[in-house]
Amino acid sequence: MTLKVFADRMSQPCRAVILFCKLNRIDFEEVNIDLFKRQHLSPEFAEINPLKQVPAIVDGRFRLFESHAILIYLACAFPGVADHWYPADLSKQAKIHSVLDWHHLNLRYGAMTYVINTTLGPALGRPANPEAAAKAKKKLDSSLSTIESVWLKGSGKFLLGSYQPSIADLSLVCEIMQLEVLDEKDRATILSPYKKVQQWIEDTKTSTQPHFDDVNGILFRAKAKFQKQRENEKTKGISNATLHSKM
Amino acid sequence: MTLKVFADRMSQPCRAVILFCKLNRIDFEEVNIDLFKRQHLSPEFAEINPLKQVPAIVDGRFRLFESHAILIYLACAFPGVADHWYPADLSKQAKIHSVLDWHHLNLRYGAMTYVINTTLGPALGRPANPEAAAKAKKKLDSSLSTIESVWLKGSGKFLLGSYQPSIADLSLVCEIMQLEVLDEKDRATILSPYKKVQQWIEDTKTSTQPHFDDVNGILFRAKAKFQKQRENEKTKGISNATLHSKM
Repeated sequence: MTLKVFADRMSQPCRAVILFCKLNRIDFEEVNIDLFKRQHLSPEFAEINPLKQVPAIVDGRFRLFESHAILIYLACAFPGVADHWYPADLSKQAKIHSVLDWHHLNLRYGAMTYVINTTLGPALGRPANPEAAAKAKKKLDSSLSTIESVWLKGSGKFLLGSYQPSIADLSLVCEIMQLEVLDEKDRATILSPYKKVQQWIEDTKTSTQPHFDDVNGILFRAKAKFQKQRENEKTKGISNATLHSKM
Repeated sequence: MTLKVFADRMSQPCRAVILFCKLNRIDFEEVNIDLFKRQHLSPEFAEINPLKQVPAIVDGRFRLFESHAILIYLACAFPGVADHWYPADLSKQAKIHSVLDWHHLNLRYGAMTYVINTTLGPALGRPANPEAAAKAKKKLDSSLSTIESVWLKGSGKFLLGSYQPSIADLSLVCEIMQLEVLDEKDRATILSPYKKVQQWIEDTKTSTQPHFDDVNGILFRAKAKFQKQRENEKTKGISNATLHSKM
């Protein structure tokens, strides 16, 4: 029975899992669970993942959720996955766990909360929350600074000084890619102080093509759509202001 | 060279690591890093963990931080650790990773943020933050509800329906134990709807004695101290009110 991956590519951990499968030629069926249509809240999906979140996988009778747990499981359970993704060496594995554990309450929390409160929330009709966004931005900044100065220390191009990418590179780069949906000036300003982070994102992209662009393509389509929405609202704002000034 | 564990027992992930070492008779030296005295911010400790957080370990030339990564490493690197703590079986391992990954942005975030904004912050001279505490309480409640209905589903006494505890039980129970420093009525109210959670805490305590009480003893001393502080402030408040009413 083919591995099933329940995912919405608008979700960063989903993209990491899909990218991993494609890079390692793991045969899988991608089952789209549309978050905007709230399909993750359906009783059918709750049978797959009672936490009602994507990604989730079904491998035969085995069900699993949480993207890091999934990435580790896939790297161990499927033959032919190159060692660098999740090395058999205990110390190297431990360091990858360390980055992945750190990720949740740092880069993940900061980036996700910032994107939701500035962009995705308003796109779903909820008001932006500048106070929550400002708090999240601090965490996002400190996380990027930690990646720059701690996780990218060493001679290799990738996290933990490695010469080839691991599942940690996939998880963290997919998270940072979510910033593509922001206003482009804002995104550039956020990343601009972190030269090593920028180079690492490029290196991870390059080493995972053509799948990287395929899996992340949805973000650029969303970016264009949100940009148009913002411009429309700006125009509407200017029209209203003109109208008021004429009244 | 003996394993060194850099820790402050007031920190819940530190307690999980120390408890694991004691339960598995791992020979280790506990190096106290006093968080209240800000010893984790010293340049010496930054050499051990550049993220300036506890717990951290040094095993020979190998340095590691993040408690879940440490627990997995210890379970694999030290001989004689019983299989149930971190099973060799891939599916069981994956499920444990799933609980541990979930933990960070749910129980950990909720419990830690609630305790800091109601109790530990004020104990350190910072004002309580009722708004942040209320938000954290929601996350704490939903996390306890998930433990009750999802992670404790199954026939065994422990997480994932297991008959013996794993590193996930240690991590999550040590987090919930942090609630001991709250006002006792508040703590009881938070836990009261979750009967299975309460029983699971008791079962985890029982199965890890006498080390559980030894490692968590610091919390009960802190609880008594914070309770006294609260009573003093209350008395001061009443005296002030009496003084004002007489003016």
